[in-house]
Amino acid sequence: MKSDLDHLMEEASLDALLVNGPALHNPNMSYFTGLVHLSYADLFKVRGLPPVLFYQPMERDEAALTGLKRINLQDYDARALLKEAGGDRNKALALRYQRMFQDVGVHGRVALYGHVSFGPMFAVMQYLQELLPEVELVGESKLSSVLIRARMTKDEDEIDHIRNIGKATVAVVGEVADFLASHKVHNKVLITPDDKPLTIGEVKQYINLRLAMRGAENPEGTIFAIGNDAGVPHSTGNNADPIELGKTIVFDIFPCEAGGGYFYDFTRTWCLGYAPDDVLQAYEDVYDVYHTVSAAIKPHTPCRQYQILTCEQFEAKGHPTVLHNPKTTDGYVHSLAHGVGLDVHEGPSFHSEEINNDQLLPGSVITIEPGLYYPKRGYGIRIEDTVWVRPDGSLEILVDFSKDLVIQMSAK
Amino acid sequence: MKSDLDHLMEEASLDALLVNGPALHNPNMSYFTGLVHLSYADLFKVRGLPPVLFYQPMERDEAALTGLKRINLQDYDARALLKEAGGDRNKALALRYQRMFQDVGVHGRVALYGHVSFGPMFAVMQYLQELLPEVELVGESKLSSVLIRARMTKDEDEIDHIRNIGKATVAVVGEVADFLASHKVHNKVLITPDDKPLTIGEVKQYINLRLAMRGAENPEGTIFAIGNDAGVPHSTGNNADPIELGKTIVFDIFPCEAGGGYFYDFTRTWCLGYAPDDVLQAYEDVYDVYHTVSAAIKPHTPCRQYQILTCEQFEAKGHPTVLHNPKTTDGYVHSLAHGVGLDVHEGPSFHSEEINNDQLLPGSVITIEPGLYYPKRGYGIRIEDTVWVRPDGSLEILVDFSKDLVIQMSAK
Repeated sequence: MKSDLDHLMEEASLDALLVNGPALHNPNMSYFTGLVHLSYADLFKVRGLPPVLFYQPMERDEAALTGLKRINLQDYDARALLKEAGGDRNKALALRYQRMFQDVGVHGRVALYGHVSFGPMFAVMQYLQELLPEVELVGESKLSSVLIRARMTKDEDEIDHIRNIGKATVAVVGEVADFLASHKVHNKVLITPDDKPLTIGEVKQYINLRLAMRGAENPEGTIFAIGNDAGVPHSTGNNADPIELGKTIVFDIFPCEAGGGYFYDFTRTWCLGYAPDDVLQAYEDVYDVYHTVSAAIKPHTPCRQYQILTCEQFEAKGHPTVLHNPKTTDGYVHSLAHGVGLDVHEGPSFHSEEINNDQLLPGSVITIEPGLYYPKRGYGIRIEDTVWVRPDGSLEILVDFSKDLVIQMSAK
Repeated sequence: MKSDLDHLMEEASLDALLVNGPALHNPNMSYFTGLVHLSYADLFKVRGLPPVLFYQPMERDEAALTGLKRINLQDYDARALLKEAGGDRNKALALRYQRMFQDVGVHGRVALYGHVSFGPMFAVMQYLQELLPEVELVGESKLSSVLIRARMTKDEDEIDHIRNIGKATVAVVGEVADFLASHKVHNKVLITPDDKPLTIGEVKQYINLRLAMRGAENPEGTIFAIGNDAGVPHSTGNNADPIELGKTIVFDIFPCEAGGGYFYDFTRTWCLGYAPDDVLQAYEDVYDVYHTVSAAIKPHTPCRQYQILTCEQFEAKGHPTVLHNPKTTDGYVHSLAHGVGLDVHEGPSFHSEEINNDQLLPGSVITIEPGLYYPKRGYGIRIEDTVWVRPDGSLEILVDFSKDLVIQMSAK
């Protein structure tokens, strides 16, 4: 968590972090600033010192909302810098960074962060490296960067944010279940009040509306996939498709607080009306593995072992998995879990590769999401909750919700 | 537009473009792919050849929706690459790019694009540059990159997208006007049916809801700022503030198609009930400048001259401007216009600096948004439309809407 930053920076031999870009939809920036409307900012975190925010003059009031120590970018004369750079905008920005590094007292190894347009910043940082040969500009790996590692564990305030967006998420899932169940059925297909087939596109519009009403947004979309599509884990579903009884629906919803705050990640698999026998059996297998693996999870253990355990459990039940067939598209084909926070996918990683050294630490918020996929048989199944590894090491599902597969239709 | 790409690449001596990152909220990627749910992809555009998309195996169906020539990233053995890289994930990715460059036939000068997490890609591209010394990896300037220049002019299909999101935007603005007007007033403050002051936060929630119902989202937020806050151009408004009669409200709304498609950008300034005399006079000045400058705009001219003209017009009316006082926070303090497309702010640029060589080309979609700001006097004013510079050179406001300052309250 944030209080570990200086320690983690020391471990990684980093003297400073530089984060840039907007404050919205830029997790490493909003981690420091909160959700304020800064369209561009630079944030320096020097080891042992509080962060410093550089902001644009028009955004001075928004910058003040962060409560951070701050400097107006207007203090650097853009025209003079551009002249000094011979009209090269990227060079002028590098010259400005050179001044900013001096003014904040940045030296040594500096890790670079921020969700930005890559090309221009690549050129700027190459120029800056030439201007400051004594500084080492570092691009850490996605899996092991200091900020990613700090963000892997959450403080109580962050848990509150995640639980709140979780409550909104799960409430919307309940509303969608009721919405589906309330439809008439004709030839096994759900029918709207004006006698047309209800489409996945309409369900998604309903989902977006209910999310907006609860102050949530889904910048990464929503998976609402039926039948064959449900059998492909990242298929989001075809908007024109009707909703048929007896087919599996994978409903994977992962909204965040409006503006790009904390995420929640949640999946249920439903069959409307009834479930075919083969789906019932596969669902039971997923449900069993969910509970076996959940019960096995303990803090201060390597995350990768739980992906291996999940594969072994599915293989014991006769399903192919990525453990022994990495390219399989049948059976268990993805990772068991991932961290959830300001990114919907963040650390710790549960990949089974030996290179993955992530330990499960108390304070982590992770998904648990085993699944089975048989696209050629026309179905896919996934069960996913977001859970908190509490400071005492116990697991807590942040928001509870029924895991029933079959939704009974309520309309006459 | 897209059909200019090969020509623009030749002008810039570029042999290839590499875009990476997701397809949603990553304009340079969705420019090629459309709005499909790809969480990560690499797209190569070699001069003279159609683009090639590299996708993740789980997203094969979404990748197919793009209709692009494509290659599965799984064809590159991640484990073997990681081993070859001695366990360094960034090096392994560089090794994969080395293969991908070979397989696509990329050589020469390659411009880098994509909205991504900067640090890891910085390290990857530094390694790649070492692996491919004969290739030159180029980070173009934000203002002059080939893709930014291609995107500066729009084809008919893009105009349809922008007009459609414009219609949704303006419809929501009308709904918000009606919503405000329908409220009761007590002590000059708008009151909800349960007798509490209506807050800016509630108005914004209403805006988000109406946008969601029309298939739009506002990833960059909405400005709904009143009084002093309206006097600071980028202040988004304080959620807790009540809505008072007679104060200026700057309502700047810039939503996009859900998933990060085309944007629209639109501002109206309102006074509820009545407008004070000084505001009326300032509003008239902005209105006059809007029309004078709009009438002057002609294609195949330098964009910067219109920012200068706008400043001169305001200065002739006695207002300070950024032309002669770049740091002023009173008067006319920003730029007249900007391009609108897959980014809410894109080319052409209207900055007055001599370095700005952008010409106004037929096919451009730009804002026109003069404004006056007097935070200490408690008001700000801006009028903004999004206009299309038609192929014949004439200007067309994409969606019309009343520019009346005063909204009469309709409730009894």
